[in-house]
Amino acid sequence: MADLHDLTRKLQKHNDSKIVLLVADGLGGLPLQPGGKTELETAKTPNLDALAQRGTSGLSVPVLPGITPGSGPGHLGLFGYDPLQYQIGRGVLEALGIDFDLGPNDVAIRGNFCTLDAAGKISDRRAGRVSSEVAAPLCEKLNNIKIPGVEVFVRHVKEYRLVVVFRAAGLGGDVDDTDPQSVGVEPLPPHGNDEPSRKTADIATEFLRQAREVLKNDAPANFLMLRGIAKKPPIPTFEDVYGTRAGAIAVYPMYRGLARLVSMDVLNAGTTLEDQCDRLAQAWTDYDFFFMHFKYTDSTGEDGNFDAKVQRIEELDAAIPRITGMNPDVLIVTGDHSTPSKMKSHSWHPVPTLLAANNCRYDGNTEFSESACLRGGLGQFESKYLMSLALAHAGRLEKFGA
Amino acid sequence: MADLHDLTRKLQKHNDSKIVLLVADGLGGLPLQPGGKTELETAKTPNLDALAQRGTSGLSVPVLPGITPGSGPGHLGLFGYDPLQYQIGRGVLEALGIDFDLGPNDVAIRGNFCTLDAAGKISDRRAGRVSSEVAAPLCEKLNNIKIPGVEVFVRHVKEYRLVVVFRAAGLGGDVDDTDPQSVGVEPLPPHGNDEPSRKTADIATEFLRQAREVLKNDAPANFLMLRGIAKKPPIPTFEDVYGTRAGAIAVYPMYRGLARLVSMDVLNAGTTLEDQCDRLAQAWTDYDFFFMHFKYTDSTGEDGNFDAKVQRIEELDAAIPRITGMNPDVLIVTGDHSTPSKMKSHSWHPVPTLLAANNCRYDGNTEFSESACLRGGLGQFESKYLMSLALAHAGRLEKFGA
Repeated sequence: MADLHDLTRKLQKHNDSKIVLLVADGLGGLPLQPGGKTELETAKTPNLDALAQRGTSGLSVPVLPGITPGSGPGHLGLFGYDPLQYQIGRGVLEALGIDFDLGPNDVAIRGNFCTLDAAGKISDRRAGRVSSEVAAPLCEKLNNIKIPGVEVFVRHVKEYRLVVVFRAAGLGGDVDDTDPQSVGVEPLPPHGNDEPSRKTADIATEFLRQAREVLKNDAPANFLMLRGIAKKPPIPTFEDVYGTRAGAIAVYPMYRGLARLVSMDVLNAGTTLEDQCDRLAQAWTDYDFFFMHFKYTDSTGEDGNFDAKVQRIEELDAAIPRITGMNPDVLIVTGDHSTPSKMKSHSWHPVPTLLAANNCRYDGNTEFSESACLRGGLGQFESKYLMSLALAHAGRLEKFGA
Repeated sequence: MADLHDLTRKLQKHNDSKIVLLVADGLGGLPLQPGGKTELETAKTPNLDALAQRGTSGLSVPVLPGITPGSGPGHLGLFGYDPLQYQIGRGVLEALGIDFDLGPNDVAIRGNFCTLDAAGKISDRRAGRVSSEVAAPLCEKLNNIKIPGVEVFVRHVKEYRLVVVFRAAGLGGDVDDTDPQSVGVEPLPPHGNDEPSRKTADIATEFLRQAREVLKNDAPANFLMLRGIAKKPPIPTFEDVYGTRAGAIAVYPMYRGLARLVSMDVLNAGTTLEDQCDRLAQAWTDYDFFFMHFKYTDSTGEDGNFDAKVQRIEELDAAIPRITGMNPDVLIVTGDHSTPSKMKSHSWHPVPTLLAANNCRYDGNTEFSESACLRGGLGQFESKYLMSLALAHAGRLEKFGA
């Protein structure tokens, strides 16, 4: 089958319309009891309900039925990139998660400090979960490592976790983890699975040789292991595939990074939803498409805090009038996946999704909820089709064929 | 995934059943106001409602969510041919649209008369929209052009538009338009993008050389430009993939052409729905499958005339008893796409679809409307699956696997 982007690239049309994609992370939920209400159904959401009434709603399936997505695939789907086609390595996600601006020559790696015993065997795979206060200066020391012909970047993430980036032309990303996943054995030597990746493995070997020397007196964090070694995949830009100038307004680095991955402009989002709305208003004339990200519906779900998630949804609802006040031609409210507080984790359940625009076919829904979405006009659909629906409702796609 | 046709070809089974596919072009609509009714919901359709009650209904997606189809992809989908796999060039559609019987050695081209100034530059890309009375005899003159080894056909379409067909073995269809899309410049020379298409380009060059001579005293129509140059793609026959003898009863040439593209027999349809029903009755024993096409639900939608579209739907409804009186085993009523009069154009909205047969699983619907179809037994489905549903309900598909 033809790629959906082959279609949108060919059919894209330019006009003055504005599209806002508001992602409430982990929006979908579950009732705590059979027959009960979900978080979204429990929350008082007069503004979202009004939107549902003048829009059309449905349930989006982020990847495939039964597949629980991480944030990467969840967002790529919403951006219209097939999450099975564009798989983002863990190292890349970790680098995106600290706002590291990855280039095409970069290999990104999740590092974590570990403890080696006198015999060079691993005694603790997480270096006693060393504190950030201890680990951050160690990362600065590692950042000074020099390898000829390669730029080396080491950035602290949190506690025992760090990011390592090697920058040089021709490096491959198919290198095995050095973490043997057990203690009492030596870390594995870096092993590349093709010619360019063997080059990366050689660099990693030299990096680890120097790191061992640098850290030798820093027990429990006297060494590190490398995992999730990956390059940013070639991924067409948002502007190329949709013909829209896109701005991302996200507080958390991971989501700014995912937006950057598809070449959206990443705007200063401040720290609150209020800040984000201010930013949206300021940037209104500069972009055709806005991605706004709200984190707390996910984090409260992950915490298993049903009431807090309800409260965060109500907070989101309260921000809707500011957005509708700017008169977007298309306003979408959805999530990148479900995070039921009952499960304290991401889940595979389809995600309530709402699209409001002038040319909607109304579906009779009068509220925004999982159960209403189940009867909504968008039906159940793969989230990768959300972008073509958005563009269509914004009048930004020509007819296909005569 | 395996091609759906690989399945239907393998599983097809023969019996005496009759299938009627009644296509109301552009059937789907939109309400004019939020909460209002669509054209189909406004129309009084007692016969279609009765069919919905003894059938099962749903919403078909012609191509993909958000993609607005032209008539070509819309109908290919209904005929069970993936419209993304079988893409029909503009020249081919234009030739089909005048009932030109394209063969496998034909390259079809949309031509349009233009005006060249004394310096040979384009002064009017449409030759002052010259009338049909003037243009038709010019096409007859062009039709006399002789090129060794090639049959040349020139047919008038309407006003400044014409169709040119080159017939010879080994010609390619990948030739760029000669229309530079602007005035004050010369037309582009024909340029082929592969070896067979360079052969076509050479023929086109010679054709245009002679045409310039033939038309030199016919200003404003003193030259023509060539666009949408294309060959009919190889496309398996309806009989091959489904094992049914198919007859098409369509008034408008474009739809006869689309039926011919999949090798249906094209029957004389007369000019009215009444004529078409007469024809259906006459041909009843000669075919297993009938495609009937009703144009006016689309043209009234394109005109933005909500009331006229309502009236045309009621006209269609009035014809239903004649069709059901012939006792088809499967009767499908659908559209090739939506044409909401609110939008005055084709749209991407899913299309109300109804399938009545003895083995339907009833869905409780008691009317045929967009909102009822949203809750119907067929759900939302890609229209390319309509044919396998039709064959199944007609008992024309064996079990797959043991």
